[in-house]
Amino acid sequence: MAADPSSSSTGQHAFPPENSRQTATMSGPLNPRDERRPPPMQRAFNRQVSLGSGVTVLGMDRGGRNGGGRGQQRALPRSGRSLGVLNHSGALGQAAGDGGARRGDFSMFRTKSTLSKQNSLLPTRIRESDLDLPTHVEDQPVGRPAPAEDPLNKSVPAGRYFAALRGPELDEVRDYEDILLPKDEVWPFLLRFPIGCFGVCLGLGSQSILWGALAASPAMRFLRVTPMINLALWVLAVAVLVATSVTYALKCVFYFEAIRREYFHPVRVNFFFAPWIAAMFVTIGLPRAYAPERPHPAVWCAFVLPLFALELKIYGQWLSGGKRRLCKVANPSSHLSVVGNFVGAILAARVGWAEAGKFLWAIGVAHYIVVFVTLYQRLPTNEALPKELHPVYSMFIATPSAASLAWAAIYGSFDAVARTFFFMAIFLYLSLVVRINFFRGFRFSLAWWSYTFPMTTASLATVKYAEAVPCFASRALALSLSLMSTTMVSLLLVSTLLHAFVWRSLFPNDLAIAITKDKQNGAVRPNARGKRASKRVHDIKRWAKQAPLSLVSSITKSHSADKEEEEKTE
Amino acid sequence: MAADPSSSSTGQHAFPPENSRQTATMSGPLNPRDERRPPPMQRAFNRQVSLGSGVTVLGMDRGGRNGGGRGQQRALPRSGRSLGVLNHSGALGQAAGDGGARRGDFSMFRTKSTLSKQNSLLPTRIRESDLDLPTHVEDQPVGRPAPAEDPLNKSVPAGRYFAALRGPELDEVRDYEDILLPKDEVWPFLLRFPIGCFGVCLGLGSQSILWGALAASPAMRFLRVTPMINLALWVLAVAVLVATSVTYALKCVFYFEAIRREYFHPVRVNFFFAPWIAAMFVTIGLPRAYAPERPHPAVWCAFVLPLFALELKIYGQWLSGGKRRLCKVANPSSHLSVVGNFVGAILAARVGWAEAGKFLWAIGVAHYIVVFVTLYQRLPTNEALPKELHPVYSMFIATPSAASLAWAAIYGSFDAVARTFFFMAIFLYLSLVVRINFFRGFRFSLAWWSYTFPMTTASLATVKYAEAVPCFASRALALSLSLMSTTMVSLLLVSTLLHAFVWRSLFPNDLAIAITKDKQNGAVRPNARGKRASKRVHDIKRWAKQAPLSLVSSITKSHSADKEEEEKTE
Amino acid sequence: MAADPSSSSTGQHAFPPENSRQTATMSGPLNPRDERRPPPMQRAFNRQVSLGSGVTVLGMDRGGRNGGGRGQQRALPRSGRSLGVLNHSGALGQAAGDGGARRGDFSMFRTKSTLSKQNSLLPTRIRESDLDLPTHVEDQPVGRPAPAEDPLNKSVPAGRYFAALRGPELDEVRDYEDILLPKDEVWPFLLRFPIGCFGVCLGLGSQSILWGALAASPAMRFLRVTPMINLALWVLAVAVLVATSVTYALKCVFYFEAIRREYFHPVRVNFFFAPWIAAMFVTIGLPRAYAPERPHPAVWCAFVLPLFALELKIYGQWLSGGKRRLCKVANPSSHLSVVGNFVGAILAARVGWAEAGKFLWAIGVAHYIVVFVTLYQRLPTNEALPKELHPVYSMFIATPSAASLAWAAIYGSFDAVARTFFFMAIFLYLSLVVRINFFRGFRFSLAWWSYTFPMTTASLATVKYAEAVPCFASRALALSLSLMSTTMVSLLLVSTLLHAFVWRSLFPNDLAIAITKDKQNGAVRPNARGKRASKRVHDIKRWAKQAPLSLVSSITKSHSADKEEEEKTE
Repeated sequence: MAADPSSSSTGQHAFPPENSRQTATMSGPLNPRDERRPPPMQRAFNRQVSLGSGVTVLGMDRGGRNGGGRGQQRALPRSGRSLGVLNHSGALGQAAGDGGARRGDFSMFRTKSTLSKQNSLLPTRIRESDLDLPTHVEDQPVGRPAPAEDPLNKSVPAGRYFAALRGPELDEVRDYEDILLPKDEVWPFLLRFPIGCFGVCLGLGSQSILWGALAASPAMRFLRVTPMINLALWVLAVAVLVATSVTYALKCVFYFEAIRREYFHPVRVNFFFAPWIAAMFVTIGLPRAYAPERPHPAVWCAFVLPLFALELKIYGQWLSGGKRRLCKVANPSSHLSVVGNFVGAILAARVGWAEAGKFLWAIGVAHYIVVFVTLYQRLPTNEALPKELHPVYSMFIATPSAASLAWAAIYGSFDAVARTFFFMAIFLYLSLVVRINFFRGFRFSLAWWSYTFPMTTASLATVKYAEAVPCFASRALALSLSLMSTTMVSLLLVSTLLHAFVWRSLFPNDLAIAITKDKQNGAVRPNARGKRASKRVHDIKRWAKQAPLSLVSSITKSHSADKEEEEKTE
Repeated sequence: MAADPSSSSTGQHAFPPENSRQTATMSGPLNPRDERRPPPMQRAFNRQVSLGSGVTVLGMDRGGRNGGGRGQQRALPRSGRSLGVLNHSGALGQAAGDGGARRGDFSMFRTKSTLSKQNSLLPTRIRESDLDLPTHVEDQPVGRPAPAEDPLNKSVPAGRYFAALRGPELDEVRDYEDILLPKDEVWPFLLRFPIGCFGVCLGLGSQSILWGALAASPAMRFLRVTPMINLALWVLAVAVLVATSVTYALKCVFYFEAIRREYFHPVRVNFFFAPWIAAMFVTIGLPRAYAPERPHPAVWCAFVLPLFALELKIYGQWLSGGKRRLCKVANPSSHLSVVGNFVGAILAARVGWAEAGKFLWAIGVAHYIVVFVTLYQRLPTNEALPKELHPVYSMFIATPSAASLAWAAIYGSFDAVARTFFFMAIFLYLSLVVRINFFRGFRFSLAWWSYTFPMTTASLATVKYAEAVPCFASRALALSLSLMSTTMVSLLLVSTLLHAFVWRSLFPNDLAIAITKDKQNGAVRPNARGKRASKRVHDIKRWAKQAPLSLVSSITKSHSADKEEEEKTE
Repeated sequence: MAADPSSSSTGQHAFPPENSRQTATMSGPLNPRDERRPPPMQRAFNRQVSLGSGVTVLGMDRGGRNGGGRGQQRALPRSGRSLGVLNHSGALGQAAGDGGARRGDFSMFRTKSTLSKQNSLLPTRIRESDLDLPTHVEDQPVGRPAPAEDPLNKSVPAGRYFAALRGPELDEVRDYEDILLPKDEVWPFLLRFPIGCFGVCLGLGSQSILWGALAASPAMRFLRVTPMINLALWVLAVAVLVATSVTYALKCVFYFEAIRREYFHPVRVNFFFAPWIAAMFVTIGLPRAYAPERPHPAVWCAFVLPLFALELKIYGQWLSGGKRRLCKVANPSSHLSVVGNFVGAILAARVGWAEAGKFLWAIGVAHYIVVFVTLYQRLPTNEALPKELHPVYSMFIATPSAASLAWAAIYGSFDAVARTFFFMAIFLYLSLVVRINFFRGFRFSLAWWSYTFPMTTASLATVKYAEAVPCFASRALALSLSLMSTTMVSLLLVSTLLHAFVWRSLFPNDLAIAITKDKQNGAVRPNARGKRASKRVHDIKRWAKQAPLSLVSSITKSHSADKEEEEKTE
C-alpha cells in the first residue's frame, strides 16, 4: 500500500496491480525508443511502462532542452497524440480509411462489422436493439474488470468516466489523462457529433408547444399571440430533429463503438432518452390548425416503446446494483430518464389512451421520488454532482413541471396533485434563479439546449395553471416565465449559429468518448509520482497544477476498497 | 494496522483486539491437548487461540486420534463438526438429550428454561412477548460488543450475519466459517424448520384469494371459474397454516434460542411478519358462500396487534440507528415488513373498520417510500443486496400491489392513487420478467413460496383493475398474470412435494442459525493468516479459494473504522 | 500516514498538515513559559505548538511530581480558561468593555462594527440580510479551509461542530476540547441567550391554538372548555415572543458574531425558523372573540417572507452539496426547517390565500419526503443523529401533523391526504411513546420547549380529525393527546420557572458557540498522542476516559479522505 502509492487514487475499480508492479521493476532497463508502436494489446502495456517509469522517461525527454546528457529519448507527447497517431503504423492502423483520419486513427471507433466487411451499411435500427445487449457486460463480477484484450471491445466501466473526466457534464478530460485520439486535429464530423445534440430538438420542440399554448390558451388570450410562431418553431424543430436523427443514425452506422462509449457515459446515457422525448414534443406541438383532432395511437407506440425499453434497461441497472447503481451514477441529468414518462403520459392523453398515460405517470412518479431524494441527499458516493451550480441543475425543474402537466392532461383537471408538482417546480425554479452564479463561467456546448426545455416546460405548466386559476399573478408569472425561456432559447440560438458559422466551433472534438479504458493505459496519478517528478522536470508541472482534490476526497471510499484488494493480491 | 492484518476484514464490529494479541504470543507455548473441552466461556477463547495459531492447535487437538507427534497434523476438519461434536464431552454436553442429537449437541439452542427445568412447557405466547425485550441488547454502545459470557446468551450482532453468511437470503455459510452444529448429520426436525416456512401459507393463502376473486369478479366472469377451487385452496391454506403454526410453536417451546437467532437474522426477521399476514390472507380468502357478510373486528385485532407490535419494534430499530439501522439491513425482504400494513388495511376494510385501515395504509405508505427509495439507491452500506437477480426481488411487486388493493378497499374505488400503485407494481413486474436469468441457478428452498405471493397479489390487483377498467387488455393482463402466478405456485407445490417425499430434502440443516457469534470463535479471515497458513498446509487451500472479494469491498468502511479503533487500543 | 497518526481522526476537514509537521520538529526546543499570551493570530499557532508537542509539554508540566528535571512549566489549564482569559493582555483584549466580562474576553463575539465604531447601534434587520451572505464562505473549495487569519472572521465549518460538540442537540463540548471563552465564570446574558429560546414561543403559541380549538371545536364541545384559557395562553405567548425577540435583537446588535456561530451550528440553524413559526402560531391562535374574521394578508407576507428566504438558503445548501449537504447535516431538528411551510400554509388558508398555501404545502411535502427518508435511513455520513432517543425525536411528529392540518385548511376537508399524514403522525407518536427511556437522563434546557409543539400539533390534528370522524375513539384520542401535551407544557413551565428564579440556572453558558475554529487551535485528539502521553502523565487520563468511539467510527470516511490528502501534501 505504502509501497505503491501510484495506484492509490484510482477511480473506483480495482485493477490487477500486477501491471504496476511489473512497471516498477522494469522501469529501469526498459526504455526503448518506441518509434514504432506495438499492436494495441502490447501498446497498452508499453504506454503504461513509460508512464509507470514516469519521471525517468520524461526527464530524459526534456533533457535535450535542459542541456542534459542522456537526452536521446523522445518526449511523451502530452498532446494526447501519442496513442491515436502513432497507432497509425500499428496493428489497427491499416483499417484507417476515413477521409478525415489521415493522421489520427479513428477506426477504433468504427462499427465492428464495418471494419471487417468494409462499408456494409448496417441498418439504423441497430442502436436500439443493441441497447439491451450490454447486460452481460455489467453482470461481470464487481471490482475485477474484464481482461483488456481489446481496448474498445469491452465497455468502459462507469467509474472510469468519473475518474478520467470532469465538469458537471463530465465532458472535459482531466489534465493528467491521455486520450485515445489526437487532441490537436479535428476529428471526423460524426465522431464530434454527440448524443447531446438532441438537446436542440428538446429545446425547439418544447418552445413550439409553448407558443402553441400561448396562442391557444384562453388565459393568455390577452397576448394575442399569432399561431404562426408556433408553426414556424414547429417546422424548425422538425427539421432539426430530422437532421439530427439522420446524422446520428449515420454515426450509428459508421462509428458504433463511439456510440457505445456514449451509452456507458454516466451523464450521456440519459441523453439517449432525448430523441424519443423530442419526437414526442414535436407530436404534441403539432399546430392545431393543421393537425387532426388526435394523433393516431401508433405514433405514441412508436415513440414510447423504445423509451420504455431503455427505461427497463436503465432502471434495472440502478436497481440491480452493479457499478451503475443509482447512488453512484445519479446526477441532475438523470431527470432526463424520468421526464420521458411524463411526456409520454401527456402524449398518451393526447392520443386518447388515458390508461397508458396513467401507467407512464406511475412509473415516472415512482422513479422521480427516488431520483429526487437521491439527488437532494447528495450522498458521498455520488461522484457526479458538481459543487457549483450549472445549467444542468435546471433539469430539476423539468420533471415536476412535466409531472404536473401530465397529471392535468390525464385526469382532466389541474387539481391538487398537479398543483403540488407545479409548485414544487416553481420553488425549484426560484431557488435556482436566486443563485447568481447560475449561468456563469461555463463553456457553451450544444447540451445547453437541453437545459432550456425545463424552463419551457415550467412556463407551459404555468400557462395551464393560469387557465385553472385565472388571476393577474398567475398570468404575470406565465408571461414572465415564457419570456425568460424564449429569451434563453433565442440566446442559445444565436450562440449556436455563431459557433456554427462564425467561429466554426460548434462541434469540438468529443474528448469524453476517447478516454482510455484503464487508468494504467493513459494516466499517471498526479498525487504521488507526479509530485516527485515535478521536482526534477518542471515542464510537467501542469500535471500537478490541478491536483484533483475533489476527486480524491469523493472517491476515497472506493479507494480504500482498492487498497484492500491490493493487499490481498499482494 | 499493518502489524495485525488478521483483524482487518472483520465484518462491522470492533472486537477487543487484546485477544488476538494474546493469541499471537500464546500460540507457541499454549497447545495443551484439550480432550475435555472447557466450559463455553473458556472454550471460546481456546478456539480462538487455535485459530490464531491456525493449523497447529487443531492439529494437536486431533493429534490423539491420529496418534502422531507434531508432524502429522490433520487439516482443519471443514465439516464444521469440530465445535458441535467436541462439545459433547464439554460443559454443555450433558444436556444433550434430544433424539436426533446423539452426536451433535443441540442443547445450546434449547429454550433456557427447558435446560434448567427440563421439559417445562413454556406457553407459546412467549415469542411475541419476547420480541420487545431485546431492545436493551441493541441499546448497548455501538462498536463495543457485549462481553461474551455465553456464546448464545447474547444476540448475534447484525453485521455478524452479513459476515458469516452469503446468498441473497443469507442462508449459506461462507466456506471459511465454522458453525456451532455438525454439518454432516441431520439436525432435529424443529431446528431445521425455519420461519420461512410460513411462506407456504403466504403463497397458498393469496392463491385462494385470487381464485375467489376470479370466481366472483364480474370482470372475469367470462372464465366461469368454479368457486370450488377457491374452497379447496382455502382448506389447503388453512391446513398448512395450522400445521406450520403448531410446528413453529413447538420450536418456540423447545428451541427458543434458535428462534432468537432467526429473529436477529437480517433477512429472516422480516419473515416474522409472515404468520400474521398469512392469517389475514386466510381470513380475507374465506369462501364467500360459507362466510359471514363481514368477519368480526376481533379477528382483525387478533392478527393486526402482534403485527403492529412487531412493526413498532422493527421500524424503531431502523430509525434509532444502531447496528440494525435501515441503511444497513435493508434488503428486498424488508418489503415483507411493510406489506403487512396493506394487507391489514384490506382486512380492516373487510371487517368494516375503514379508519383503522386508513391508519395502517398511512403507516404502510410512509415506510414503503423509505424502503423503496433505500433499496433503489443501493447504498454502499447496504450489504445484504445481492448483485444478481433472485426470486427475492419479486418482493418489490408485493407492496405496491397490496397498497393499490388496500386503497381501493378502504376508499371504495380504484382511483388515481390505487392506479398509481398498481401501475408501479406492473412496471416492476415487467422489469423483473424481462430479466432472463431471473429464476435460474438458485437452490430451491421453502422461502421461495414467499416469492409467489407478490405475483398473486399483482394478479389480484389486476383483477380489481379489470373491474374498474373493463376492456380486453385489462382482462387479458389479469388472466395472464393469474395463470403465471398459478403456474408458479403449482411448480412450487410439485417441487415441495418432490423434496418432501421423494428426495426427502425439504428441510435441510438450517445452517444460518448456527453461525458462531464472534468471528474469532469460528472464522479465520482468509486474506492474511489464511494465506500464510496455506503455504504450510496445502489442504486448507480452499479457504483462500473463495476469497470473499465482494465481502471485503463492501465492508471496507466498517473495516477502516476497525483499523481506527485498533490504533487506539494499541 | 503511519508517520503521523495524530492527525488521523480529524473530524471531516483536511487541515494543512504543515503545522503539525512544524510542531513535531519544534517540540523539542520551543517550550517557553507562556505567561504572556501572544496576540490571537500568533496565539493560535503557539497553542497548537504546545498541543502538537503534546507529550513533552505536558510531561514537563507534571515533571515535578514525577521527579523530572525540567519540570518548571505550568500545566495547560484544562478548564478552558486559557484561551479566553489570557487573551486579556492580547491584541483583542483592549476591546473588552462589557460589564460582565471583566475577566473573560467576550469582545470577540461582538458585532464587528461595534468593535470599530464602539456602540454604533446596528439596525436589527441586519440578521436577515446577512443570512444570504455566507454563501461565498461555503463556496470555497471543499476540503481546504480558508487560511485562518482571524479565528472568528470565517465561519466555523459544519464538521467542526460535529467534532467538537456532542449530545443530540450538539450543545455539550467534548472533554478534550478547549473553548474560546472561560468556562468558570458567567458570561454576559446576551451571549447565554441562544436561539433555542424561541422554542418557548413555539410551545406556548401552539398551546394557545390548541385550547382555542378545544373551546371552539364542535367535536370537543362536551369538554366545555372556556375560551379564557386560550386568551390567557395567547397573551402569555405574545408576551414571551416579544420579550424573546427583543432580547435576541439586542444580541444581534451587540454580539452578531455569536449569532453567526449559531447560524453555522448544524442543529441551531434550524431554530432560526422558530421565530417566524412562533409568530405565525400567535397569529393563528388569535382568540376568535377578539380577532377579525381573517387577518390581513400582509401579516402572512411579513412572517412568511423571511422564512421563505431562509428556506431558499438552507435548502440550497442541502442541494448544492458543500459541507452542509443534507446527508451530512440531517438531524431531527431539520424538521423545523420543513414544518414552517405547513404552518405558513395554515396561515395562508386563514388569511384567504389558498393558492399561496398550496405553494407552501408543495414545498413542504417535497422536502419533507427528502428529510423523512434521509432520517429514516440513518446514513452513516449522518453524524448528528444520536443513538439514544431524545426529546428532539418528537420533531418527527410535528411535520406530518402540520402537513395534515395544512392540507385540511387549504383544501377544506380532512380527506385522504390529510388522514394519511395524520395517521403517520399518530404512528410516529406511538412509536416514540412506547420507548420507555424517552425523556430520561437528559439535562433540561430551553430547547425542550420546542419539543412540546409537535405534541401540541398532533393534538390539534386529532381534534380536527375528531371533527371529521366524530366517534368515541377519536374524541378520547384527542382528549388524551391534549392532556399529554398540556401536562408536558405545564411541567416545562414549572421547570423553567424553577430554573429561572430558584436555581437561577436557566441560561447556562452557551458553550456551543465558543468552540475553537480549528482543531489544532484547541483540541488534542485523544486517540494517538493522548494515549501515549497518558503513559507518562497520569493526570490527563481523563482525556482518554471518554474516547469518542462513536465519533471515530462515524467519521471514518472523512478520515480516510484526510489521509488521502495528507499523503498528497506530503
